[in-house]
Amino acid sequence: MSQYRAPWGDIEFLLEHVFARDGQAALDLDLARSVAHEAGKFAQAFLEPVNRRGDQAGARLEQGAVVTPPGFARAYAAFCEAGWNGLRHPERFGGQGLSAVLSTLTEEIWHACNASFALCPMLTGGAIEALLAAADPVLQARLLPRLVSGEWTGTMNLTEPGAGSDLGAVKTRAVARGDGTYAITGQKIFITYGDHDMAANIIHLVLARIPDAPAGVKGLSLFAVPRHLLRDDGSPGEPNRVACVALEHKLGIHGSPTAVMQFGDDEGATGYLVGAPNDGLKTMFVMMNEARHAVGIQGLALSERAYQHAVWYAGERRQGRIVGEDGSRGDTILRHPDVRRLLLGIKSRIDAMRALAIYLALQRDQAHGGAQASPRAAAQARLDLLVPVMKGWFTETAQRATYDAMQVFGGMGYIEETGAAQYYRDARILTIYEGTTAIQANDLVGRKTVRDQGAEARRLLDEIAAAARPGLDGEGLGEALRAACADLRAAVDAILEQAGSAPRAAYAGGVPYLELWGVVAGGWMHALRARAAARLPEARRQAVLASAAFYARHVLPQAAALRQAIVQGGTQADAYPDDCWVG
Amino acid sequence: MSQYRAPWGDIEFLLEHVFARDGQAALDLDLARSVAHEAGKFAQAFLEPVNRRGDQAGARLEQGAVVTPPGFARAYAAFCEAGWNGLRHPERFGGQGLSAVLSTLTEEIWHACNASFALCPMLTGGAIEALLAAADPVLQARLLPRLVSGEWTGTMNLTEPGAGSDLGAVKTRAVARGDGTYAITGQKIFITYGDHDMAANIIHLVLARIPDAPAGVKGLSLFAVPRHLLRDDGSPGEPNRVACVALEHKLGIHGSPTAVMQFGDDEGATGYLVGAPNDGLKTMFVMMNEARHAVGIQGLALSERAYQHAVWYAGERRQGRIVGEDGSRGDTILRHPDVRRLLLGIKSRIDAMRALAIYLALQRDQAHGGAQASPRAAAQARLDLLVPVMKGWFTETAQRATYDAMQVFGGMGYIEETGAAQYYRDARILTIYEGTTAIQANDLVGRKTVRDQGAEARRLLDEIAAAARPGLDGEGLGEALRAACADLRAAVDAILEQAGSAPRAAYAGGVPYLELWGVVAGGWMHALRARAAARLPEARRQAVLASAAFYARHVLPQAAALRQAIVQGGTQADAYPDDCWVG
Repeated sequence: MSQYRAPWGDIEFLLEHVFARDGQAALDLDLARSVAHEAGKFAQAFLEPVNRRGDQAGARLEQGAVVTPPGFARAYAAFCEAGWNGLRHPERFGGQGLSAVLSTLTEEIWHACNASFALCPMLTGGAIEALLAAADPVLQARLLPRLVSGEWTGTMNLTEPGAGSDLGAVKTRAVARGDGTYAITGQKIFITYGDHDMAANIIHLVLARIPDAPAGVKGLSLFAVPRHLLRDDGSPGEPNRVACVALEHKLGIHGSPTAVMQFGDDEGATGYLVGAPNDGLKTMFVMMNEARHAVGIQGLALSERAYQHAVWYAGERRQGRIVGEDGSRGDTILRHPDVRRLLLGIKSRIDAMRALAIYLALQRDQAHGGAQASPRAAAQARLDLLVPVMKGWFTETAQRATYDAMQVFGGMGYIEETGAAQYYRDARILTIYEGTTAIQANDLVGRKTVRDQGAEARRLLDEIAAAARPGLDGEGLGEALRAACADLRAAVDAILEQAGSAPRAAYAGGVPYLELWGVVAGGWMHALRARAAARLPEARRQAVLASAAFYARHVLPQAAALRQAIVQGGTQADAYPDDCWVG
Repeated sequence: MSQYRAPWGDIEFLLEHVFARDGQAALDLDLARSVAHEAGKFAQAFLEPVNRRGDQAGARLEQGAVVTPPGFARAYAAFCEAGWNGLRHPERFGGQGLSAVLSTLTEEIWHACNASFALCPMLTGGAIEALLAAADPVLQARLLPRLVSGEWTGTMNLTEPGAGSDLGAVKTRAVARGDGTYAITGQKIFITYGDHDMAANIIHLVLARIPDAPAGVKGLSLFAVPRHLLRDDGSPGEPNRVACVALEHKLGIHGSPTAVMQFGDDEGATGYLVGAPNDGLKTMFVMMNEARHAVGIQGLALSERAYQHAVWYAGERRQGRIVGEDGSRGDTILRHPDVRRLLLGIKSRIDAMRALAIYLALQRDQAHGGAQASPRAAAQARLDLLVPVMKGWFTETAQRATYDAMQVFGGMGYIEETGAAQYYRDARILTIYEGTTAIQANDLVGRKTVRDQGAEARRLLDEIAAAARPGLDGEGLGEALRAACADLRAAVDAILEQAGSAPRAAYAGGVPYLELWGVVAGGWMHALRARAAARLPEARRQAVLASAAFYARHVLPQAAALRQAIVQGGTQADAYPDDCWVG
């Protein structure tokens, strides 16, 4: 097995050179360096060693309680002890209040080393954001210090058997008891870390309906439902009426328990209203946007981990004669042209994704903490447009990255002991949870493109086109990026037109439209990287430019095909007669 | 779970209309209909019911012997009893001598219903072909009747720990004993059905070296090594020195035992030379070409099965409001634009693959049994060019098909009980075994394009361009196919030029070149389908044309991007400095 190395060189390049002029967040490079260094050491010591064991042992349900894989609880205790859980959360609740940039780079490291483990703090983080956004001060004071420290963890309870992507169909009920609490009754499925043995309490954020609430999503309220009832001093008391009734058997992320949760039995479970009645979806969206951003980072992280594993193997395995190099038998497969193509194919996409992740983290820091209102709003608009792209494109790219990494191993890749298959299986959930790629595409089409009539999309396209100026370093990059921008501009026009005249065509083109945004945004990042490459030592400069050139020749040309799929490809499936699908 | 339906409607369309004028093989349509019908019934009764059980239980090694999953042995006995094993094998050895077209359509059905099971007769079939090609009449008489009936099975032993894609590194030794037999000593890995409990004997075809043989692939000889020694009457006697020492833990095809085989212990195992000494690779290629063709069919089959499963779910699951259809809550997800896009995306690729599989089967029948030498040679040249395309492109396409099919299920797709994940896991081996996609691409570039200076490639391109005439039915198809042909023509030129001046660039472009051939050959098949569609009832005609139009808008436009990757994309990875891969 290879050992993971935190990609510090690339992060330093991004922070010091690529985004130097955009450093609104007053980045402290020394702090970033030491945080990344410590995070890498921690992950190697505690998270990576239990990743494979977590896959093999899985989380188990024993007598109504979930037992996490060997080593997970110890790793979690160390994680909290070291203060990692509160890195980005407010100091007033015991966190360190550090920037989104720093949390982005540490989260990549956690997910790379153990995606199953890292889901637990990821969801706690989302719950914290939701409570910060909407809970009253009393509830915040009772819950947040313990969630920030990691003493307790948080979950996200949306899905029900009849309510997946369609939250309007949620049936879980909440009845006011008159003492300030609510009685919650219903079943939720696919609850990540819905139960476990790593923390003293679990705070479930649950979407439910109050009697006589409006139908659909406008009648959803959000509740905090603790696994153990809260004593007056805030410490956990008797068990609440909350039960994990089953765990799912999944393709991957075996170490992460995915629970079927039953709230209430003959009586309801005790819950606390978070925010105003019937206003729950808005708060849940805070949590979901957090989670979408975080799942994008997971896509980057699993791509990087699988890639490093494949690079290691390619440098060890000796097999075959090397094309174009006489007498080379005995060299490693890293010299085979197709192995290099596979590896640079992953690397050039990782380079694009990590740059975009850091760029969006800078926008988040600006949007949340900027001194002036106008740049704050601009950063928020940029973020709103690109979060579905990050979630959708990073996670679809992670499928290809983990697939190609496995391919480098040949037959050994299909053997579970090799470890490549685990990254592939773990990654497969990423395009499904926290909203499938189609759900991200619907968001990108409807709320992010059509709602403002393409204003923010075109603003960003102008910016990208300016970066794609002739003479840009990286062979073929400027030309390819300009062509891809033109394709995306045509796609924006087509989506806007179809949205009025043929909305089904617009939404049938949604996923290709999202992919096209990803391809172009990635090319933009390569342009920014290539522009800054001159400041690097020669070999590193050459690496940045070869990666950009590969992206220009292999990835950006897909823009023209995606444009066709969007502009002309939306109607065929509706023309297909339903009784001819099978036979 | 959905129940599989043999795609008889499509097969009938292909045999009766699309390839009617190419019916050199004197196709008996009634025979094909009854064979497909019976095969479908058999597969539903015996193979599909044990597919999931095979995945869960897996093959196990117990006290040195492999136990196959519950139901496999019974299914195999029924399979042989019904005569399926000998369908395409010569009548003089007890087979039915039916055409490649008929075996192609039945093999699709076996692999669709149970890919793990179907590997066993698939490998026996390859062993039969190798023995027919090279074994002496005495050995043929001893082995073939029992292999054809299925009473015994066959395996293919190439790979060793140090010899994967590079067969020149094979170390297994064979020493003549002077009694006509050889003593075989060595270890082979990744041996599919290397041991099992479904047949009375197993004939291992083993590549090994005779003392003083030339180095590399020119010193390989082929041996038949039975698990049980052959008595004079041909019946199985004492155990040979052949042992299954381990089974691999794989990502998928759990029902199929993948064995580490030890030949010989203190003494060698008894083996029989097949063909001339040092001439083993040529015979093994007979078997490998069989297997590549068969694995291509597996790609088609798993795509079809995963697709039918997804269509079934999409027609059952109700979720969400349907875009562009007011008041449609409660409709099934089959009405969602992106679900239709996913399904037609799979279907249009399946339509292309099945047509190409049948086309190539017709070429096989022509090449092997045609009355005249010149058409026989032409068919063989066509087959030689397209077999690596079929193996490489069908199996890469199967990855996308099983991925997209899983995506239709949303969160349920990630749960193993749903069954979608099994098709996805099973399919993952297809681009690896019997030569990875890169190995197919090397063959396509070196032996199939460069060796004849592109003659056969250009001959086929002329034929495809003629089919892509203006006015072709299927919206946009003619234009898109003509453009894609021009892209492929440019790619052939580039590969030929690079092969002389920059061979590493040619081979770095090999996989994109293979994909481009697949995309164009698939478009050609859609053109032939569209041409014949007028003979169908209206709904079926509309289905054929919508599928072709989808292919024209979503798949064929990728040709331009692949052209760029081939023409200009071969050098960046060599420019990438090796010490910059990680960090």
